[in-house]
Amino acid sequence: MDQVNVGIVGLGNVGSGTLAILAENAGGIAEKLGCRLNVTAVCSRTVDTKEIPAALGPVKRTTDWREVVADPNVQIVAELVGGTTVAREIIDAAIAAGKSVVTANKELMALAGAEIWDRAIKSGINLAMEASVAGGIPIHAVLREGISGDRVVALQGILNGTSNYILTEIERHGSDLKTVLAEAQRLGYAEADPSADIDGYDARAKLALLAALAFGERIVPGDIHTEGIRRIHPIDFQYAHRLGHTIKLLCAARRTPEGFFLSVRPALIPQSTILASVQGAYNAIWVRGQYGQDTFYYGRGAGPNPTGVAVVSDLMRVAREIRSGSPDRVSPFAHAKLGENRPLPITQQRTGYYLRFRVHDRPGIIAELAGILAKLDISLDAVLQLPSDSKHNLPFVITLEPSLEQSVQEAVTKMAALDFMVEPPLALPMEKPL
Amino acid sequence: MDQVNVGIVGLGNVGSGTLAILAENAGGIAEKLGCRLNVTAVCSRTVDTKEIPAALGPVKRTTDWREVVADPNVQIVAELVGGTTVAREIIDAAIAAGKSVVTANKELMALAGAEIWDRAIKSGINLAMEASVAGGIPIHAVLREGISGDRVVALQGILNGTSNYILTEIERHGSDLKTVLAEAQRLGYAEADPSADIDGYDARAKLALLAALAFGERIVPGDIHTEGIRRIHPIDFQYAHRLGHTIKLLCAARRTPEGFFLSVRPALIPQSTILASVQGAYNAIWVRGQYGQDTFYYGRGAGPNPTGVAVVSDLMRVAREIRSGSPDRVSPFAHAKLGENRPLPITQQRTGYYLRFRVHDRPGIIAELAGILAKLDISLDAVLQLPSDSKHNLPFVITLEPSLEQSVQEAVTKMAALDFMVEPPLALPMEKPL
Repeated sequence: MDQVNVGIVGLGNVGSGTLAILAENAGGIAEKLGCRLNVTAVCSRTVDTKEIPAALGPVKRTTDWREVVADPNVQIVAELVGGTTVAREIIDAAIAAGKSVVTANKELMALAGAEIWDRAIKSGINLAMEASVAGGIPIHAVLREGISGDRVVALQGILNGTSNYILTEIERHGSDLKTVLAEAQRLGYAEADPSADIDGYDARAKLALLAALAFGERIVPGDIHTEGIRRIHPIDFQYAHRLGHTIKLLCAARRTPEGFFLSVRPALIPQSTILASVQGAYNAIWVRGQYGQDTFYYGRGAGPNPTGVAVVSDLMRVAREIRSGSPDRVSPFAHAKLGENRPLPITQQRTGYYLRFRVHDRPGIIAELAGILAKLDISLDAVLQLPSDSKHNLPFVITLEPSLEQSVQEAVTKMAALDFMVEPPLALPMEKPL
Repeated sequence: MDQVNVGIVGLGNVGSGTLAILAENAGGIAEKLGCRLNVTAVCSRTVDTKEIPAALGPVKRTTDWREVVADPNVQIVAELVGGTTVAREIIDAAIAAGKSVVTANKELMALAGAEIWDRAIKSGINLAMEASVAGGIPIHAVLREGISGDRVVALQGILNGTSNYILTEIERHGSDLKTVLAEAQRLGYAEADPSADIDGYDARAKLALLAALAFGERIVPGDIHTEGIRRIHPIDFQYAHRLGHTIKLLCAARRTPEGFFLSVRPALIPQSTILASVQGAYNAIWVRGQYGQDTFYYGRGAGPNPTGVAVVSDLMRVAREIRSGSPDRVSPFAHAKLGENRPLPITQQRTGYYLRFRVHDRPGIIAELAGILAKLDISLDAVLQLPSDSKHNLPFVITLEPSLEQSVQEAVTKMAALDFMVEPPLALPMEKPL
């Protein structure tokens, strides 16, 4: 066999990047793989408007994904349409037809990865999903092969490039979120409906998938405490800097003897950490292993070419297995433990806190706030007010010693009800680096 | 088959870390692998003094590696003795006996990896070498699988933990190299003969191996321009900081249309880069791909457990292939291109430069140095002298605009001969981040 035949379903950003790399880097791929990767068929609802690189030779074009799956020449189906409906049909049909599958689909794999892998293993085909989390970072290869001998105890990551880009712009230019978001939308960095990015849902799906693979436990998006970045204001970066910190939408997963703490939320992290230096649309993942200790991975979170590299690398791996007749026989999801370990409520976590207030100024405010904290047994660390030109609704910050999250939430609820509050206090955890 | 049998040759740091992980994480390994990894035999010259974890069950102990290779039960031989003599015999014998090999041997793989892989492929066995470069960082898995679809165009890395630890200590405490080295030796971080670490030879072997794999070209240690850190003085960090930089023993490999630039040498790198934040005994590798753009990998460079994770992960991968009957069929070294691309002399490279001088002070020194630079068509960027208590042999620094390395070397040679020089100028490249 001197080639393996691929069918590609979905010609958006990722699909077009994949085709471009398969065309331009065909020689390098064949050299590493020992055979050619041949694109036999492509499918898109708007396939007639798509440019297929001429170097790929004759390629069947169709608007019906069933034709790709049914094509007897196609050995690997790349599902690059995303979402959880049609994508699921495509993958199920490909598995039923005995074809291996490469997917870039984080939502589907986070929601139903374990079931899909079960079916794939029963059918003796291979499944690959490098592009599903942090497109440019080969974190699946790292977890599956590179550090498979280790026992992962914690993960921290920046998994959504759009929100990281927005936070970086707010930090750099002092513009407010609305302005930066509008500009990001104009440049095509953010969707018209930005909710998945700025409310944390995209990051949540990625963390669920990564954590399930890293810990070998059943972890789904709904298990993860999630907060977005809508309330982050330029003034928060000024205070964070004064505290030697910056603010990131942090994805965190930690194994404890009692269970897992899982969260996606904006957090203060020390400026001296490598994670703090992750700027713009980049993603990064910090992994702590019981034996290998800390490793860190950084790269583009998305984009046609970085994600295309992940898809092409998966195609190569699956093609190698097709040629040598060796499907993976063990699911990367932990079937044995499904449902065994449940995530702990985030309210049981202890961490330092940053509370930012806007108040109608009057005497006795700090005393009143400190009184609420004292009653809940929360130790106040510092009170901070930056100099400002305006005296109107002047913000100030209180930082807390590591405290039980439940108590902090109670305190914030009580504080929000005080008559001098302009808006509810903003509470951000101050994460220690792993 | 419910187990794969492993023989371990060499029970130093890496071997003992490997045994500990195989014993303590046996359950997790079996779950991911679908079978047990069983240690059948271990070999060490001092095997009687070694503690073998009881959880491993009965293990044959021998001082003769041939017994491990010849043991009919052993399916994978882990060569963890290092060096290029006995290690080569062990690997050759294992391949001849049809056994797969896991090795942590950077020198041997850098020198003879391509030949050894050829033999392994002919024998239909598998070879794995994750532990050979940057123990805790799964860079082999990344290059082999994670970003295999990409075309790597440049690498930058910190690949020797001992020298990075020494530089970090000089930077933090202002102690001189001699003092820091003595302390590192006392703590066991540096060898009694520190040359391999501080003169760059260890890093050179690792860069040769990484570059050969990343670029798919024949690159051996002798191809790489190498300078160590012996001349770095605390004052150089003070000047570097003033310039917004730090100093690292930088391993660099860059593909150009004319050939490869390869170097291991101390260099100034901007403090704002992620590479600059790599402290102490950590390693890091920055990879630029033509499609995937920049990715970055960070972790422990050495140590029994991090390197043990790499060995165990390799054992798992090889065991998986033994169970499913699928050896890798393509060498990660580019046989087709052996000898095709030769490295370019570093003298053809253009980069900014940091020149640090110690002189017997007298009028006209700057004029004389500037005159030498002007004659060689080198543009001076800045002259810098930090305030100091002492006026004796006061150091100062000249930075150069990007210049041809050959011209800079000529200038430094001429300057070294001037009668007011206390010692030859120290010339360090100022590397731009990738």
